[in-house]
Amino acid sequence: MHILITGAAGMIGRKLTQRLVKDGKLNGEPVERLTLTDVVAAERPAGFNGKVDIATGDLAASGAAEKLIAAKPEAIFHLAGVVSGEAETNFEKGYHVNLDGTRALLEAIRAAAYKPKVVFTSSIAVYGAPFPPAGIPDDFHLTPLTSYGTQKAISELLLADYNRRGILDGVGIRLPTICVRPGKPNKAASGFFSGIIREPLAGQEAVLPVADTVRHTHASPRSAVGFLIHAAGLTRDALGPRINLAMPGVCVTVAEQIDALKRIAGAKVAARIRREPDELITRIVAGWSERINAERARSLGFKAESSFDDIIRAHIEDELGGKIAN
Amino acid sequence: MHILITGAAGMIGRKLTQRLVKDGKLNGEPVERLTLTDVVAAERPAGFNGKVDIATGDLAASGAAEKLIAAKPEAIFHLAGVVSGEAETNFEKGYHVNLDGTRALLEAIRAAAYKPKVVFTSSIAVYGAPFPPAGIPDDFHLTPLTSYGTQKAISELLLADYNRRGILDGVGIRLPTICVRPGKPNKAASGFFSGIIREPLAGQEAVLPVADTVRHTHASPRSAVGFLIHAAGLTRDALGPRINLAMPGVCVTVAEQIDALKRIAGAKVAARIRREPDELITRIVAGWSERINAERARSLGFKAESSFDDIIRAHIEDELGGKIAN
Repeated sequence: MHILITGAAGMIGRKLTQRLVKDGKLNGEPVERLTLTDVVAAERPAGFNGKVDIATGDLAASGAAEKLIAAKPEAIFHLAGVVSGEAETNFEKGYHVNLDGTRALLEAIRAAAYKPKVVFTSSIAVYGAPFPPAGIPDDFHLTPLTSYGTQKAISELLLADYNRRGILDGVGIRLPTICVRPGKPNKAASGFFSGIIREPLAGQEAVLPVADTVRHTHASPRSAVGFLIHAAGLTRDALGPRINLAMPGVCVTVAEQIDALKRIAGAKVAARIRREPDELITRIVAGWSERINAERARSLGFKAESSFDDIIRAHIEDELGGKIAN
Repeated sequence: MHILITGAAGMIGRKLTQRLVKDGKLNGEPVERLTLTDVVAAERPAGFNGKVDIATGDLAASGAAEKLIAAKPEAIFHLAGVVSGEAETNFEKGYHVNLDGTRALLEAIRAAAYKPKVVFTSSIAVYGAPFPPAGIPDDFHLTPLTSYGTQKAISELLLADYNRRGILDGVGIRLPTICVRPGKPNKAASGFFSGIIREPLAGQEAVLPVADTVRHTHASPRSAVGFLIHAAGLTRDALGPRINLAMPGVCVTVAEQIDALKRIAGAKVAARIRREPDELITRIVAGWSERINAERARSLGFKAESSFDDIIRAHIEDELGGKIAN
């Protein structure tokens, strides 16, 4: 099997590549070839005996998507995109990468006429407040409050139409906030959800800019990769026409996140969280979805962690080699 | 006030133009100039003393939208589009006209930086079966089952993002089936909803291809124009961020349509309906929405007819000069 990953140099792209190399197969078929594309060169995966092509460039550029599709990869993980903050500050770039890039990919597939499996990472940013207090049901409307969310929602609609017409077998998965994100703190408004766990576990101080009562839905990077792999295995029959669906996660308050950290790493580690309320971040976060019901995804077999404790444990195992900085 | 109408040569475009000329004003301001654009030349409206520009061409063609926006029309009614059937049979044309055309218009407005009012005619085709039996609520998700519905849903999302960013004051109205459509029978799958009223009233036979139990939501052409005018008057505050909304209509079965025709025109007229079941049309119609709740639109002051009798009366008044062929 030949697999194409767009956005392969990103955090999820790297982890997905590692997982595919480790598994050696997808949907029961051996992985023989990987095409990894991104705006910067993805790393060549270690321990893979198949063919690897590393491509760089802008998916929306003329001819770029056609070139990637020329060898007709059977499975495509379309992860590439400009993140939320950048899509908001740079209008043109956001639409160019997140909308035109996706459309170019879909059009290249249509031109090649071979019906690959396409797994697209959408986001819960397709939803915008106000939300039903009981959580966001699977049939809740698309009312994004960011350009990023708009671009993801549009890409979902395109994917569903191309799927309906039999051009591809598509599935769009709306990822919840990925927590704990490995690596350095970034400027994303959502960064603190990971920071208040990651930094204390690494012996560093973390800033909490919102109230302890803020509620949000999280899934680990490991779960996100699991969603992608599971999505690739779903049949057209199982999915039906509604191919875009919210992924499950663990719905907790910030206080519950901190309690979990205390249980797993102790009060001394949790004491590295410093409260420093930030009005702007508080206001941004207030527009985000709190509880995602994701009943359909669960019934289709998508699995997230069952507690925030498990999310922290996954981070300690996958990123810290099992060790906590006391 | 300078008003631009795209799709001005179409049925709704012509009726909107007539209404604006008759009213002489929009939102309390005198209508001084009309720019009417379509793929074919719109008729010059009779009895209008202001300036009229008739333009023809493809809105998505390079520079076309910029040219229409150059004079900065304060109100824009964006009605232009390829209809459902054509968007389904001609994939490229549907996306070119319904998506690229809309995007070109929005981008031209962004480039001109002057924040006009933009009223966009969307459609209940943004919804796809299965539906809640109690009717489609305002927060029901977008799951179109046609390329036309997909293009309308995407245009709605774009409009909302441009609105949110303050580039324009937008409102998208999801029209129910317009009934009774004047003119000759067309090949649209929905054509019979109008045909079974229009033809008998004109002394001609009409074919009913579906069961009497088929339920659907209708509004008259007069109401559709009323929706457009009302939408243009809604403030940003009244609308909030959710600017795309389903319009009200009269929800009836085909049997109830026929009963209304009998009440208004007599059994002899209604006997001109010939039942000739068509499997394809029956299957297509089964995927369409039956009941649209449209609570938000009603609370914002949008008004449709209150019975199907009123819809028939509007047709007799507006199209038949009050006369029925007995």
